[in-house]
Amino acid sequence: MLVIGNEILSGKIQDANTVALAALLRRLGVSLRRQVAVLDDVETIAQEVRALSESHDLVFTSGGVGPTHDDVTIDGVARAFGVEVVEDPGLAAMIRAHYGPRLLDGHLRMALVPAGSTQETTAEITWPLTRLRNVFVLPGVPEIFRLKLRVAERLIGVDRPFVSHAVYTRMDEGALKPLLDAVVAAHPGVEVGSYPTWTDPTYKTKLTFDGLDAGEVARARDALVATLPEGEPQRVE
Amino acid sequence: MLVIGNEILSGKIQDANTVALAALLRRLGVSLRRQVAVLDDVETIAQEVRALSESHDLVFTSGGVGPTHDDVTIDGVARAFGVEVVEDPGLAAMIRAHYGPRLLDGHLRMALVPAGSTQETTAEITWPLTRLRNVFVLPGVPEIFRLKLRVAERLIGVDRPFVSHAVYTRMDEGALKPLLDAVVAAHPGVEVGSYPTWTDPTYKTKLTFDGLDAGEVARARDALVATLPEGEPQRVE
Repeated sequence: MLVIGNEILSGKIQDANTVALAALLRRLGVSLRRQVAVLDDVETIAQEVRALSESHDLVFTSGGVGPTHDDVTIDGVARAFGVEVVEDPGLAAMIRAHYGPRLLDGHLRMALVPAGSTQETTAEITWPLTRLRNVFVLPGVPEIFRLKLRVAERLIGVDRPFVSHAVYTRMDEGALKPLLDAVVAAHPGVEVGSYPTWTDPTYKTKLTFDGLDAGEVARARDALVATLPEGEPQRVE
Repeated sequence: MLVIGNEILSGKIQDANTVALAALLRRLGVSLRRQVAVLDDVETIAQEVRALSESHDLVFTSGGVGPTHDDVTIDGVARAFGVEVVEDPGLAAMIRAHYGPRLLDGHLRMALVPAGSTQETTAEITWPLTRLRNVFVLPGVPEIFRLKLRVAERLIGVDRPFVSHAVYTRMDEGALKPLLDAVVAAHPGVEVGSYPTWTDPTYKTKLTFDGLDAGEVARARDALVATLPEGEPQRVE
């Protein structure tokens, strides 16, 4: 994923789109392996899109889409693949219909797309998602980002969703380490995570168990629970 | 900034540390230019730390610090610079004093640091921040991350803080574009941003003006306000 926008890196806005994409991909059985946030700079965006597109199956961009001077994502994606920016006739027609006599040149800039891209829709979501090869171009506004994710979801389809369990305990990570090491060694197909909290009074460490094989994930969780001392765990999910 | 953790890229947790670091750096007059999030993988972390350390003045890592198998940031930072991981005597003494007779091997793993790193403290914050060259190693738990940021703040010091203003208007971005282009052209030292909202009923677009020269930033904002039609802006900051 590539997050684009000075507003993110200047600390004005907390990015909410990475977690939305990550959670969706998880449900679809797709691993999000890398997220990068950069400033509104065409050449930087082009380099990142090119690199991510070559090294990953799917790439999602967030932000920098719109009519103003700081919206340079379409230019960046086009430059990444050495194609021109062109006006999409379908988008232009939708924009003309929407604005009618109030239409300004600035509005039509929203019809600009990289040449060769496709404009993807669903029956419910008719404002298109721009896709060029394995790159999906999404806007930064969280409400619209999540709406367009539903179009991406249709295109990707569900593979085999990840299964996730959790165990909450009052033990600290230092004490848990040997127990966790044993489970990790015995269940190589399960990703085991350990997360301390400093704010929740009901537990000290959250242990997570993730994988594609539901039975194996449950067995790893149960194996850990079986090694906990009396009075533990506090909670199992 | 390098954010490390499967929990971020699996969508279980929304990263809150990037915005905290970004806002602090802004106050110190430092530009955050790039943020990368990766999985808990030693070699990936090592590559990212090496690349970021070479291409930037300062690097901050978040997450992957602790005693369990999924805490591999110290190993990654050490590998980035080709140094060993060693036990820091000062940290080990603090951990021994803290746990007393309850001390376990797992607890002492929190005393491991890259060889050559310094353990930085302030008068108030005595649990150290690990620093190796231009890399600051911070934990992922947001409360502790922000605490250790205060140690980093002391080390960095204030340069010249960024100044920020904003204008809120009911105009849409398409209509604003020519007005913004004029201000951008006339005030090259000011970074001008434009952000539509879909949820706030009191305005349609937020315009931001940022820079290091307070007078220039205010002049750019006022120049834009002067070109708005009657009834605008809704609000100025």
